[in-house]
Amino acid sequence: MKNITFEEFAVGTTRTSGGRTITETDIVLHAGQSGDFYPHHMDAEWCRTQPFKQRIAHGTLVFTIGVGQTAGEINPLAMTYGYERLRFPKPVFIGDTIRTRVTIAEKREYKRPDHGILVEKIEVINQHNECVMACDHLLLVKRRDL
Amino acid sequence: MKNITFEEFAVGTTRTSGGRTITETDIVLHAGQSGDFYPHHMDAEWCRTQPFKQRIAHGTLVFTIGVGQTAGEINPLAMTYGYERLRFPKPVFIGDTIRTRVTIAEKREYKRPDHGILVEKIEVINQHNECVMACDHLLLVKRRDL
Amino acid sequence: MKNITFEEFAVGTTRTSGGRTITETDIVLHAGQSGDFYPHHMDAEWCRTQPFKQRIAHGTLVFTIGVGQTAGEINPLAMTYGYERLRFPKPVFIGDTIRTRVTIAEKREYKRPDHGILVEKIEVINQHNECVMACDHLLLVKRRDL
Amino acid sequence: MKNITFEEFAVGTTRTSGGRTITETDIVLHAGQSGDFYPHHMDAEWCRTQPFKQRIAHGTLVFTIGVGQTAGEINPLAMTYGYERLRFPKPVFIGDTIRTRVTIAEKREYKRPDHGILVEKIEVINQHNECVMACDHLLLVKRRDL
Amino acid sequence: MKNITFEEFAVGTTRTSGGRTITETDIVLHAGQSGDFYPHHMDAEWCRTQPFKQRIAHGTLVFTIGVGQTAGEINPLAMTYGYERLRFPKPVFIGDTIRTRVTIAEKREYKRPDHGILVEKIEVINQHNECVMACDHLLLVKRRDL
Amino acid sequence: MKNITFEEFAVGTTRTSGGRTITETDIVLHAGQSGDFYPHHMDAEWCRTQPFKQRIAHGTLVFTIGVGQTAGEINPLAMTYGYERLRFPKPVFIGDTIRTRVTIAEKREYKRPDHGILVEKIEVINQHNECVMACDHLLLVKRRDL
Repeated sequence: MKNITFEEFAVGTTRTSGGRTITETDIVLHAGQSGDFYPHHMDAEWCRTQPFKQRIAHGTLVFTIGVGQTAGEINPLAMTYGYERLRFPKPVFIGDTIRTRVTIAEKREYKRPDHGILVEKIEVINQHNECVMACDHLLLVKRRDL
Repeated sequence: MKNITFEEFAVGTTRTSGGRTITETDIVLHAGQSGDFYPHHMDAEWCRTQPFKQRIAHGTLVFTIGVGQTAGEINPLAMTYGYERLRFPKPVFIGDTIRTRVTIAEKREYKRPDHGILVEKIEVINQHNECVMACDHLLLVKRRDL
Repeated sequence: MKNITFEEFAVGTTRTSGGRTITETDIVLHAGQSGDFYPHHMDAEWCRTQPFKQRIAHGTLVFTIGVGQTAGEINPLAMTYGYERLRFPKPVFIGDTIRTRVTIAEKREYKRPDHGILVEKIEVINQHNECVMACDHLLLVKRRDL
Repeated sequence: MKNITFEEFAVGTTRTSGGRTITETDIVLHAGQSGDFYPHHMDAEWCRTQPFKQRIAHGTLVFTIGVGQTAGEINPLAMTYGYERLRFPKPVFIGDTIRTRVTIAEKREYKRPDHGILVEKIEVINQHNECVMACDHLLLVKRRDL
Repeated sequence: MKNITFEEFAVGTTRTSGGRTITETDIVLHAGQSGDFYPHHMDAEWCRTQPFKQRIAHGTLVFTIGVGQTAGEINPLAMTYGYERLRFPKPVFIGDTIRTRVTIAEKREYKRPDHGILVEKIEVINQHNECVMACDHLLLVKRRDL
Repeated sequence: MKNITFEEFAVGTTRTSGGRTITETDIVLHAGQSGDFYPHHMDAEWCRTQPFKQRIAHGTLVFTIGVGQTAGEINPLAMTYGYERLRFPKPVFIGDTIRTRVTIAEKREYKRPDHGILVEKIEVINQHNECVMACDHLLLVKRRDL
């Protein structure tokens, strides 16, 4: 764990996770956890008749792994405030390898003056450098003690 | 599967899922899927020293199960456009039972005139009738053929 | 949930579930749950020397998923009495897609006059329209109040 | 593996497996595999309002583990023909410990004279010595070569 | 369970387990249990740039399954004392089939005269008859009562 | 990833992981992965009759999680050579919280002069500060280029 105050974050900073290959196992486990057994994820025969021709990962799975990939060292001064503008511009197929890029996009005032809102832009990128998920992650971060 | 056009959705309509108890198993499996082994979810000893005194579910787990609970009959005319304003106003503890309420909140024009944007308000509610997660789910829905 | 009395069931009625592709993951998870690691399910090398040439799903896995696919809306007036004549006429291989067809096959008297026995014929069908599992599901269903 | 011919089985022989405690984990995993998230298994709040007061194991889970507990040494001369009279006389709760007793109950002629039908009575017993599942397991077993 | 005293073990005795095919599922589940998401196991793209060209099983997974394959009948007179010289001479790839050979390698005196140390040599072998894991398993075994 | 040469490791250096609570889920999943369903791990009734009175974690589970907890940043110059003197001085019970301490214990010459053998002492510690697992982890580490 490492304390980082609101002041120490610099807009424009970027970090990128390692890659992770999305497997059939991930999709089957995610269906079992979410209870979502829609044919888009579970029925390879039906998928063959659809535009994408194959099974695709659940949106909640891409969000789960994408956000999970950003988990690094804990900053006890920060906590998640919420997420905005979550989009899935491209599907994720079995065998795709994704990594997550986090960019400090913005720093906003917060109603309590001892904290600020930090906006991280999260982008999940596949092996073709296509963005398959994007969202803004809002964190409440403590300011430096005066 | 059942086709429902944009016109057929009525703002204000609400449906609520059945309940599901969040278990230690869900959290352990979700850590394994997301790769997020933060002590908030995995270290009961450390949690005892924190304000909540116990392990809490991952935000991505609450989102996964909450959204999963809305999966009912498939509407081939609708697809997810994205999510907005995702918030986690209360923590979810092991043993809490959650259900999901979906309200048709708004209908918006879309740039392509044969589709509209449907806004579902998703609220995940615990056994104390507290909201533990809320977001807007945006769907792109086909309009009736003219 | 929706109450349906014994009188409301009509012999000959049929419903069919969506499809689900049986994956290697399902078999590995089922071995882990059942404790059955027989080479028919787990040893691809040995299977190559056998008539089927490949790994096959556990019978209990096909039963679990087949029966699971019949789970729809809950009828609080019905409960499982048992199963009869469970058979596995064809093997299920990794990559097969199965769906379940339920036919109301028979209505029988029960010793308590306020209930009847409903016999559902359950058939699990693969992508070649072959029956891979069949059984009779006996349900105890409350009759209409007089 | 060990070859045992039809002639070598003696009606009345009994063997009993070790015990296994049914956990909340087993139920959550089984819901995920079967897709059956009925409140009887998953909603502790709702269960509290029901006669049993607590969550119960899926029938297909008890069958899966009960049959799995009978898996010992492989007899290449025998294969499952089917199951009859599957019943669940008592519910299985989280924390119950079950073991499986197999009794050679009957030997029947088969249409092909080089095989016979062996009937194993399978009984799953809990820690109170109550039977929670019973069925007849029919096996097709090769006769001794003449 | 079957009691076997220290005296009854004969140096040189060997037994070999059945085979088990290591699947992508095993690796994904093991990452989830261990928390080790290193790219060697999880990132197929990165692996393609490495000498082995493909994902490899975790050492702890090979140890888990290899040791698990030795689990047969319980000997209440024996307990694990430890493991020595654990080595992984070859990688295990997805689709490899492994079996475990156990050889009674040595019998040693123990400081308490009513027990001895039994050394089992454990070798995990793949489908090409290559050793992929080896170790010495030390067991504390009770001697015959005098 | 970060390159660290053999020369840069200093004997005596110690690092300690965060904690992780061992759950019933971990044990059930590990039984399913290893195929080891021994009553010590799976049968709470039987365990009540034994000295420890409760279920204990598999040794391979403690090794898997203990070693997994040491996984931090990747050092491309180092690879596992093997493990020595693996011992389990105390059992791990459900609900125990473990962390792993790694100490650089020794640096040894290797037959190839461009590498050295680094010995890490791994100790898994429970919430009572008792050591529940210990071993020596041998790594082959590249020396600085001359």
